[in-house]
Amino acid sequence: MNHGILFDHARTARIGLPEAVFCEGKPLEALSELLGQFGRGSGRPVLFTRLAEDIYAKLPTELRGGYDYHPLSRTAFGDTLPPKAKGRVAVVSAGTADGFVTWEAARTLAYMGIAHQVFEDCGVAGLWRLAERLEEINTFDAVIVVAGLDAALASVMGGLTPRPIFGVPTSVGYGVAKGGNAALASMLSSCAPGVAVMNIDNGYGAACAAARIVNAL
Amino acid sequence: MNHGILFDHARTARIGLPEAVFCEGKPLEALSELLGQFGRGSGRPVLFTRLAEDIYAKLPTELRGGYDYHPLSRTAFGDTLPPKAKGRVAVVSAGTADGFVTWEAARTLAYMGIAHQVFEDCGVAGLWRLAERLEEINTFDAVIVVAGLDAALASVMGGLTPRPIFGVPTSVGYGVAKGGNAALASMLSSCAPGVAVMNIDNGYGAACAAARIVNAL
Amino acid sequence: MNHGILFDHARTARIGLPEAVFCEGKPLEALSELLGQFGRGSGRPVLFTRLAEDIYAKLPTELRGGYDYHPLSRTAFGDTLPPKAKGRVAVVSAGTADGFVTWEAARTLAYMGIAHQVFEDCGVAGLWRLAERLEEINTFDAVIVVAGLDAALASVMGGLTPRPIFGVPTSVGYGVAKGGNAALASMLSSCAPGVAVMNIDNGYGAACAAARIVNAL
Amino acid sequence: MNHGILFDHARTARIGLPEAVFCEGKPLEALSELLGQFGRGSGRPVLFTRLAEDIYAKLPTELRGGYDYHPLSRTAFGDTLPPKAKGRVAVVSAGTADGFVTWEAARTLAYMGIAHQVFEDCGVAGLWRLAERLEEINTFDAVIVVAGLDAALASVMGGLTPRPIFGVPTSVGYGVAKGGNAALASMLSSCAPGVAVMNIDNGYGAACAAARIVNAL
Amino acid sequence: MNHGILFDHARTARIGLPEAVFCEGKPLEALSELLGQFGRGSGRPVLFTRLAEDIYAKLPTELRGGYDYHPLSRTAFGDTLPPKAKGRVAVVSAGTADGFVTWEAARTLAYMGIAHQVFEDCGVAGLWRLAERLEEINTFDAVIVVAGLDAALASVMGGLTPRPIFGVPTSVGYGVAKGGNAALASMLSSCAPGVAVMNIDNGYGAACAAARIVNAL
Amino acid sequence: MNHGILFDHARTARIGLPEAVFCEGKPLEALSELLGQFGRGSGRPVLFTRLAEDIYAKLPTELRGGYDYHPLSRTAFGDTLPPKAKGRVAVVSAGTADGFVTWEAARTLAYMGIAHQVFEDCGVAGLWRLAERLEEINTFDAVIVVAGLDAALASVMGGLTPRPIFGVPTSVGYGVAKGGNAALASMLSSCAPGVAVMNIDNGYGAACAAARIVNAL
Amino acid sequence: MNHGILFDHARTARIGLPEAVFCEGKPLEALSELLGQFGRGSGRPVLFTRLAEDIYAKLPTELRGGYDYHPLSRTAFGDTLPPKAKGRVAVVSAGTADGFVTWEAARTLAYMGIAHQVFEDCGVAGLWRLAERLEEINTFDAVIVVAGLDAALASVMGGLTPRPIFGVPTSVGYGVAKGGNAALASMLSSCAPGVAVMNIDNGYGAACAAARIVNAL
Amino acid sequence: MNHGILFDHARTARIGLPEAVFCEGKPLEALSELLGQFGRGSGRPVLFTRLAEDIYAKLPTELRGGYDYHPLSRTAFGDTLPPKAKGRVAVVSAGTADGFVTWEAARTLAYMGIAHQVFEDCGVAGLWRLAERLEEINTFDAVIVVAGLDAALASVMGGLTPRPIFGVPTSVGYGVAKGGNAALASMLSSCAPGVAVMNIDNGYGAACAAARIVNAL
Repeated sequence: MNHGILFDHARTARIGLPEAVFCEGKPLEALSELLGQFGRGSGRPVLFTRLAEDIYAKLPTELRGGYDYHPLSRTAFGDTLPPKAKGRVAVVSAGTADGFVTWEAARTLAYMGIAHQVFEDCGVAGLWRLAERLEEINTFDAVIVVAGLDAALASVMGGLTPRPIFGVPTSVGYGVAKGGNAALASMLSSCAPGVAVMNIDNGYGAACAAARIVNAL
Repeated sequence: MNHGILFDHARTARIGLPEAVFCEGKPLEALSELLGQFGRGSGRPVLFTRLAEDIYAKLPTELRGGYDYHPLSRTAFGDTLPPKAKGRVAVVSAGTADGFVTWEAARTLAYMGIAHQVFEDCGVAGLWRLAERLEEINTFDAVIVVAGLDAALASVMGGLTPRPIFGVPTSVGYGVAKGGNAALASMLSSCAPGVAVMNIDNGYGAACAAARIVNAL
Repeated sequence: MNHGILFDHARTARIGLPEAVFCEGKPLEALSELLGQFGRGSGRPVLFTRLAEDIYAKLPTELRGGYDYHPLSRTAFGDTLPPKAKGRVAVVSAGTADGFVTWEAARTLAYMGIAHQVFEDCGVAGLWRLAERLEEINTFDAVIVVAGLDAALASVMGGLTPRPIFGVPTSVGYGVAKGGNAALASMLSSCAPGVAVMNIDNGYGAACAAARIVNAL
Repeated sequence: MNHGILFDHARTARIGLPEAVFCEGKPLEALSELLGQFGRGSGRPVLFTRLAEDIYAKLPTELRGGYDYHPLSRTAFGDTLPPKAKGRVAVVSAGTADGFVTWEAARTLAYMGIAHQVFEDCGVAGLWRLAERLEEINTFDAVIVVAGLDAALASVMGGLTPRPIFGVPTSVGYGVAKGGNAALASMLSSCAPGVAVMNIDNGYGAACAAARIVNAL
Repeated sequence: MNHGILFDHARTARIGLPEAVFCEGKPLEALSELLGQFGRGSGRPVLFTRLAEDIYAKLPTELRGGYDYHPLSRTAFGDTLPPKAKGRVAVVSAGTADGFVTWEAARTLAYMGIAHQVFEDCGVAGLWRLAERLEEINTFDAVIVVAGLDAALASVMGGLTPRPIFGVPTSVGYGVAKGGNAALASMLSSCAPGVAVMNIDNGYGAACAAARIVNAL
Repeated sequence: MNHGILFDHARTARIGLPEAVFCEGKPLEALSELLGQFGRGSGRPVLFTRLAEDIYAKLPTELRGGYDYHPLSRTAFGDTLPPKAKGRVAVVSAGTADGFVTWEAARTLAYMGIAHQVFEDCGVAGLWRLAERLEEINTFDAVIVVAGLDAALASVMGGLTPRPIFGVPTSVGYGVAKGGNAALASMLSSCAPGVAVMNIDNGYGAACAAARIVNAL
Repeated sequence: MNHGILFDHARTARIGLPEAVFCEGKPLEALSELLGQFGRGSGRPVLFTRLAEDIYAKLPTELRGGYDYHPLSRTAFGDTLPPKAKGRVAVVSAGTADGFVTWEAARTLAYMGIAHQVFEDCGVAGLWRLAERLEEINTFDAVIVVAGLDAALASVMGGLTPRPIFGVPTSVGYGVAKGGNAALASMLSSCAPGVAVMNIDNGYGAACAAARIVNAL
Repeated sequence: MNHGILFDHARTARIGLPEAVFCEGKPLEALSELLGQFGRGSGRPVLFTRLAEDIYAKLPTELRGGYDYHPLSRTAFGDTLPPKAKGRVAVVSAGTADGFVTWEAARTLAYMGIAHQVFEDCGVAGLWRLAERLEEINTFDAVIVVAGLDAALASVMGGLTPRPIFGVPTSVGYGVAKGGNAALASMLSSCAPGVAVMNIDNGYGAACAAARIVNAL
């Protein structure tokens, strides 16, 4: 096999991050079929993301019975992965308006069996709210920071925690903040060292990034 | 005069903001001629901005003798305007790298005869530096905040001061922060209410905006 | 408290800018609950912004009875803050199409108890309309300028008033003006000195910026 | 010839706009060769644009003797086209910093034998300067407006003249105005009707657009 | 009036371009009120642009009876301006998909009493269609070119006509062409000299620009 | 080896496109070392691209002796690949200013042993030049079209040739055309079907794309 | 005819790429009329693209009877072109979410009578899926690669196949990937040589580009 | 201290990431002074980044004697931090052109006393090079991936390693890849889950992000 390139299929499976189905834009029938295969008790845990509430409501009742659905985060899963023995992740957000991303991260962690806690409303316009919770946040093994608009929370947090930190800019805002590009640029330019960044609204990705750390503990 | 257009020249002068000469891109001869008219003792105070050190060095020695030149801020003036009896402005910056803008604001205030103080190195990666100075900053009548990169200082400051606040994003940075657009977007998206924003690197404009407040005291 | 972080909550309250609730994107139930707490006579004045007319119409009648709602500006409040003894703000707009922003600024001022007057249809395509009102506008303590498209009004106004001036670009327009970026860039690049700028459509923020001035009178 | 497409070569020549050579980026030898062919008395008038002063200085003295070179506009020509009997074009600019574009337009008109007049320093920050000249400007057959930064002059002018009007945004400025995109967007979004726009810094193109009008008189 | 600003209202009227009402985003009641004032026989001709068919259908029947409405161009007017004795304008478009802009230009010309002719489907992917009509197009006094996607028609036309030429990029297209920015950039960069450009989809503006020429004939 | 992924190294070599060294930004010593290995007679033909003339001039004379260097295209090679028995490629450009890209494509073809011909100055501002050469161009097996500014040539050519066509936008231009984005958008939006596009200034890539066709003949 | 330009109309027809009707934005009546002319048995094969399912459903039943409609690709045709004797095209996609583009390419090939095969779900996050199919893919005469998000598949494929390769970025994605610009930039920047690129979502164009190759076999 | 803000300075020090000095743009004297304080044996280890070779060469010889300077990475330090007992980081790059970023990351790790190894030339255009090294790379505790152009390596790597992975897009490239935005967008859009991203060229930041993981081992 001396001229070959070899990737070990099984190892790829071992990257430890299970499959997820991005539902946005998929037709109802395709979703029905997929959801039909991976419900509770199927032994095949799969995470469904970006599954909007009005779409979910149109699915057959019996099918929905096999799922734990969470409207704000637009996520659904039947079974979860086995709980991890070690590792805890903090999900810190600037405001409740960022909730759809905050909870996408939290729900992905739940699905992966990773202990976590959500700290909402820590935006820098009211620094004392963050200050009160900082000591507790620093007991976690990784910190996910979710913020839109100017995303200043990522920088402030980055200067206050020694933990691995993953920023998720959100599309919350209007004018120059619309769509999340201001928040993304702000996080990437953070004056605090070692703040890593995910795509806009990518709460799922941040949970996976944190899982890569937890999986190694 | 019934078919005419008439603007009252004197009123325009009364907007209280004197002329400034933006030197970047002007040929040396044009600068020489302009500087020749408005030096110390000419009785006609004019502010020269964006006058780079290497350009200034090429001007005739006797001409330079009539000016107070400040290399970092790239500003020069002969006479200043009469000192204002009231009104003080704080210029708060994130880091020394923002100095060329910080001092352009400070020098413009100096030229306009407005009392002011510079607070450098208040970036949010080390919040305690800002915290130590906050009480003093809040004694000023207006606050100019100068910051590049994520410009998180503007939001943090906006949540901690009741004063009129003018943010100046700087072009300091690289990658997505290069040219200052990340800082600009961040300031415009500030989660703190009432933070007004100037063009990138426009320290002169921020000083003028603050002067509009001081002039009315 | 020697290892802690402490922000003085009371001082923050003293920045003099009350809380506002940005309603866009919040679910109906959340809005109902919030509106239920802060209606007329509750003693807790809160401003609701970006509360669209069709959303508001879906709220319970009795709840709506406790609010002063203004459809064009999409704002609601129960009680207002106590009227300020001093300080008046002019809100000058280019056209009626900018009304949703013009009146968001005006309503925010009304809610904060700040005297103000709206001057609409002052766009530079018909300069005489502005000229007729200029003398009166200059009697105010701060000027908010609202304009979309080329936002030339901000520059023209900036050359004609000595007052603190806050430009609000609006998202009115199409083609390159769509979303307000042309107006924003134009205002930030203003050839008139000291024109400070808010995010696109941010009438609320401009009112807060003006309030920072009025609060100090 | 019934299946064919036919363009009349001679007609194309009759579009009335002579060839121009854009010199930027062309190697010195290529420029030498081209300039060698079209000097004064060659009977073949050609306009050279974007011919920088330091480049021009490197060309052979005898070759330069055959040309009328204008450093600010970076234009050169030997012979001009025959003067037009009718038609006059006004070139109105916001400031002297726009001079490299203003004079590129003026020199192109000169080369094409079209009567014209330059009105500099008409920027809207001092509207009275424009007001004083408006009546005269309106005696011309077409108006070219050259402005950078917010380019508000194009809108103001568009509301004050019935003449065909061609806006040329300039790359003068910094921050969001850098490169001229703010000025371009502002002109394209003009609130005055019928303002046509050229590419950034394209003084040559504006002169050609005006020439299309003059050629038909 | 010696301290005042005075613009002669009558002169502005004399710029020869009548008022138009941009209807997009205006509430139904406001439109009803406006349309109620300017219908056929009112003696006050006004052009309504961007008046969508579904909106128009909701207006009272008797009110609609007073208007000449054209769904594709989304324009309505009651009376027109008096026909011009001289001057004809050609409106040349790349394809029928550009029709909403092509006909906005044509209808604006009709409303202003300017003779004109529409030449559709002249896109450069089939150059022979343009070639067949070129001679006729060149008999007009001004040429409006309407094109989306790559807008190559503006350049081709610019090289084949000596007439004043106004390009209108359209928002027709997808991917990089979506919204019309590719067409706009292409037209502004035209390799043919003297092609002037309007904002994306601004058929009304192109007609006004052409009217500035016709008005002077 | 049943769980493995296997890429055949040798097949990759068989994609038929030899290695090239992109020289821009590489230090002089690194270039010297690389050029030292692959000169004429080394039996290892390698193409060097983006090798600027002033850099090349600094290399040792004896090293340069082993290379065929072409300044305009900034390419160098020692040996070429064996000539292909079949397949001819036309390189059509809008203007001589595009020469640095046109000839990068041509030189890459030369290096790969592919017959080709360059047709310069076919820009659409003078369509007859293209028309005269069209029949000959269509005898080639693939057509590379090189154009900057509005890049209208790609669309026109795409409507006139049945051959595979690869557009290369160039960075030639200023204002909105600066850097080549206008040309790129224009080519991608081409109204002619099946025009494939390369990165800005990527003459090398276009030659490789054409080689993929020639290699299969 | 010696001063003329001549394009041979008949040759243009011979570019071998039949007409297609882009349906998006066309009113229902226009579509009805067009579809009425080109149905099965009309002898005039035409491809309709971007014909959304909900629009198609509104067309008269008898009219739909004359068409082969494919909802995912949003394409319809009556007759097809005669099958090509030679030439096969592979359509390789990253994921099923890209299906609307993948199948637009495949259906366009079907309509043009070109043999082809679709290889879905070859995204680089699971390289073994591509590896398993590589040998077969390389038996085709041209390869179309369809991918959104990071579009890494185009680069990987470009390094593994000697065939002509046409990348089609898709608008699949969110945040920075929204609208397909990330995929487009990634494909244009491909580190593999000779990957040609189409506009975002332009499956039709990729099929035409491949047809230009097949037509010459 | 009851009305104050208090941050625990010591805790901030405990985030475990030492100070770094960004040298770009700092004047020579400022650099001299800073470098004078933190040289070898000073007991105060500081990392200097973006310290260009030509700048460094101008510093006094004796001062340079106290530093370990690395030209490609543009980094200097005197003493390093104490070596970490645990934790190893892999730095994987696409090509040698990315070296200035690759080695900035490696040198930052060296300075922080963290074991690491550099794997260059793993770009996806030659997948076998990555394949050969994959098993070894996966023995590290965190993986930094450095790539410009299409940055496809980040996605490929993300699908092949279970380790925490930090992508650093580089500014290597031209056309749409110029400045690194294509690489940044590609990495943020990665189809592999949990790939976290740093600002363009931010090798220092990636090393800090990895250090946050190593510090917790």
